Amino acid sequence: MKFADWMSAVQDRTETALAALLPPADALPGRLHDAMRYAVLGGGKRVRPLLCHAAGAVFDAPAAELDRAACAVELIHAYSLVHDDLPCMDDDTLRRGKPTVHVEYDEATALLVGDALQSLAFQALTEDGAPSCQSRLSMLALLAQAAGSRGMAGGQAIDLAAVGQALTLEELEQMHIHKTGALIRASVLLGAHCGHADEDAQKRLAHFANRIGLLFQVVDDILDAEANTATLGKTAGKDAAQNKPTYVSLLGIRQAKALAGELRDEALAALAPFTGRGERLAGLTRYIVERTF
Amino acid sequence: MKFADWMSAVQDRTETALAALLPPADALPGRLHDAMRYAVLGGGKRVRPLLCHAAGAVFDAPAAELDRAACAVELIHAYSLVHDDLPCMDDDTLRRGKPTVHVEYDEATALLVGDALQSLAFQALTEDGAPSCQSRLSMLALLAQAAGSRGMAGGQAIDLAAVGQALTLEELEQMHIHKTGALIRASVLLGAHCGHADEDAQKRLAHFANRIGLLFQVVDDILDAEANTATLGKTAGKDAAQNKPTYVSLLGIRQAKALAGELRDEALAALAPFTGRGERLAGLTRYIVERTF
Repeated sequence: MKFADWMSAVQDRTETALAALLPPADALPGRLHDAMRYAVLGGGKRVRPLLCHAAGAVFDAPAAELDRAACAVELIHAYSLVHDDLPCMDDDTLRRGKPTVHVEYDEATALLVGDALQSLAFQALTEDGAPSCQSRLSMLALLAQAAGSRGMAGGQAIDLAAVGQALTLEELEQMHIHKTGALIRASVLLGAHCGHADEDAQKRLAHFANRIGLLFQVVDDILDAEANTATLGKTAGKDAAQNKPTYVSLLGIRQAKALAGELRDEALAALAPFTGRGERLAGLTRYIVERTF
Repeated sequence: MKFADWMSAVQDRTETALAALLPPADALPGRLHDAMRYAVLGGGKRVRPLLCHAAGAVFDAPAAELDRAACAVELIHAYSLVHDDLPCMDDDTLRRGKPTVHVEYDEATALLVGDALQSLAFQALTEDGAPSCQSRLSMLALLAQAAGSRGMAGGQAIDLAAVGQALTLEELEQMHIHKTGALIRASVLLGAHCGHADEDAQKRLAHFANRIGLLFQVVDDILDAEANTATLGKTAGKDAAQNKPTYVSLLGIRQAKALAGELRDEALAALAPFTGRGERLAGLTRYIVERTF
């Protein structure tokens, strides 16, 4: 299967799996369920589910298991976007080309949507499935750590504290390793877990995931600086407007692009021992970079 | 051990277990971890941990396992209070006699505190322990359902929609079965799980928990109507001020107290088959009611 076809296929099956997992909009409380579906369905590039499936492909993991894991990470990601967009955080009105949840519904509903999506993410991983019981507990632990105060939520807190601050490149990296990196890493490792990857392979994939997590952020910063709102589907240029440190503000656009190239090469090198089985992960690495060039 | 001594002992060991589970305030990001500890430690009656330990006592469940489960439900409860107090929800400034988290820190931090406490609750249940792997997965599923859109978060959404509405007694009950009842039920059932309760016993306890969940809410409404802010440790009379339907506004204080008495009797009756082993659960039932009389 061509890479683009594989990507569409994973995006489609993720949409289907998410739609089945989310409570129907006519189940009480209807407004909350409607808003949860609004927040999750019909948008997004599904980068984390793609990474999950691509990592699973290295070990021939069963697709149904990967769907479950992919939904779990995507629900954590979706909840973080809803909370991130709230007035007390980034105060954003546009996301994936649509009004943000608190604009379309209201702030209190958006708060609860995020809260309930987080619960649903963990619930998804508790459902009966093929991976051993112990393996599913490890996956739940992995996701909880990645989402929590030493992962994504912690990264948001570091981000808050960094507004208006002059960060070093190292401090910026630390922020992103938490803020986006933790969940990207979890996506890859959850996919590997579904295929019973051994410890050695997991270590290699963790290194790959660390590189790709930073790569993703560098690219995001470049896009935010260069793109206009219509292409991006969210308000562009917000980082500069909010005086947030970014790779572009620290390095300039040219050097940020050079860094993206380096991270891509390091990520691809980490995949070398998997030979052809790492093909989807390599494809995703290139895909992430190509968005900027 | 006398009931009051048992209660203090459980409260103390819960405090110790929570303090050990929460990341230290000097771990990065410090402000977030400091705020998480502020939100959870040094306050609260720990009703849910007490219920968890009391249910575990019916089946001689190991105390260390009960601590873990008790921490998990208390963290979910604590996160819900932090989010509940936010300006876009109840806009409360006082909780457990202290300024609420968004007042003491800031709104964005309070949002992240709640988010990270929820992740930590699930993480707590993934840690190695004596209950079988399958049993721990069931406990995680139970907690996720109780916290989510068909449980506590759903109850909050129903509550939001009910402000200024004239509810029937049945609709009010539906709201509370979700809003407080789901987590109360989870507390009791998690405790039972730690002691490998059979299905029959779990069903009986679920019925007990449903009664006690409503009892708890009826008592809360009576307290809110009668107590002053100093005794309550949170802003009193808010429900009436916000035009929220309560058992007192629907039934009047006298009938609300009669309902509390009925619910207490039904809860105690559900415990009868456990004979003396249900002693702690019976003690808690009486304790909840005595707060009002």
